[in-house]
Amino acid sequence: MPRTTTANHEIREARRAKLLDAARKVFVRQGRAMTIADIAAEANVSQGLAYRYFTNKEAIFHALIEQVIEASPAELHHFLQMQGTPGERLALLVSQLFEGRRTYPEFFHLLDQGQIIETMPNDLRERVRDQGRALLELLRQLIVEAQQAGEVAQGDPDQLVIALTAYLEGMSWWILHNPEQFQQHAPSVEIALRLLKVPLEQK
Amino acid sequence: MPRTTTANHEIREARRAKLLDAARKVFVRQGRAMTIADIAAEANVSQGLAYRYFTNKEAIFHALIEQVIEASPAELHHFLQMQGTPGERLALLVSQLFEGRRTYPEFFHLLDQGQIIETMPNDLRERVRDQGRALLELLRQLIVEAQQAGEVAQGDPDQLVIALTAYLEGMSWWILHNPEQFQQHAPSVEIALRLLKVPLEQK
Repeated sequence: MPRTTTANHEIREARRAKLLDAARKVFVRQGRAMTIADIAAEANVSQGLAYRYFTNKEAIFHALIEQVIEASPAELHHFLQMQGTPGERLALLVSQLFEGRRTYPEFFHLLDQGQIIETMPNDLRERVRDQGRALLELLRQLIVEAQQAGEVAQGDPDQLVIALTAYLEGMSWWILHNPEQFQQHAPSVEIALRLLKVPLEQK
Repeated sequence: MPRTTTANHEIREARRAKLLDAARKVFVRQGRAMTIADIAAEANVSQGLAYRYFTNKEAIFHALIEQVIEASPAELHHFLQMQGTPGERLALLVSQLFEGRRTYPEFFHLLDQGQIIETMPNDLRERVRDQGRALLELLRQLIVEAQQAGEVAQGDPDQLVIALTAYLEGMSWWILHNPEQFQQHAPSVEIALRLLKVPLEQK
């Protein structure tokens, strides 16, 4: 590749990354109401330039989701291989899922509601669904192992998967619904882990 | 009132009640997608007759919500006066809220999402909000009393109110999102009560 083309490519990639960083910040502040103009202002570029990278708001949502999807499979895999008892690994996974929800509540609520999934290109939609299934399977596997180790309450592991994920979805809902109240009285991760009867001290 | 007027009034009231019963059934099956035609068919009346009682779908949603609101204050009051320890009364309230969510998931999810609230007449909207606040206050009061009685884990009672209501909202979401999976693996009320550390045996 001639040098100028490579340089151009690098400039484009760097600008795209900068716009996505700005979009993530604006999205956390404004949620679905964000506009390309807000993102351009945050990134200190012209709207015209922003539109050369993303044709519309949906395209930006998809790119943000793509970033999360890229990051996740390695992380998920990690929880099966890392050190510690199954209960400890499960507690860590729940803490991280909980933190993700607290940091990007709009993002997860948007995914939970499913409308955004319908607007995605087919391959991205499939990857989002695969990722969702992989997370449910990982939760289930860790729960089963932790039950065998006596660290989690006995009973149907799928009930516990539903209970945990319902709780996480409800957290996103609460944060969006009444952020001031949530900020002052955010339930600790220890309360979420009570659903499984994993004492926090095991972490 | 002359007799024919009274009789007419009674017929109107009976027909309205019959249409609302039908609407509730159709709503449970079809959710927001329900039409006046569906409701008329369920009630075995003509669409024209149904439209004489409800001008549109929104009016039916509002009437259904009004029925729930009418029924609730007395019930809520009941939990403060009934027999049993605070922990027992709290466990019973959580069971009933959970059952309500299981029976009418679409209904509660619709209320949770808030769009329907924006379309309500002002007085109904105020009553729905008062009812929501009253429920949160009742939960908080029972939690505080149960903490004093040593039946519920110590700590910020508002965290427990958020944890419980998040869980309930998440249940409605799960039921709508994946009803088959939920039907087979519905978490028991005992799992919800773990958030408070109320053993089910106390019920």
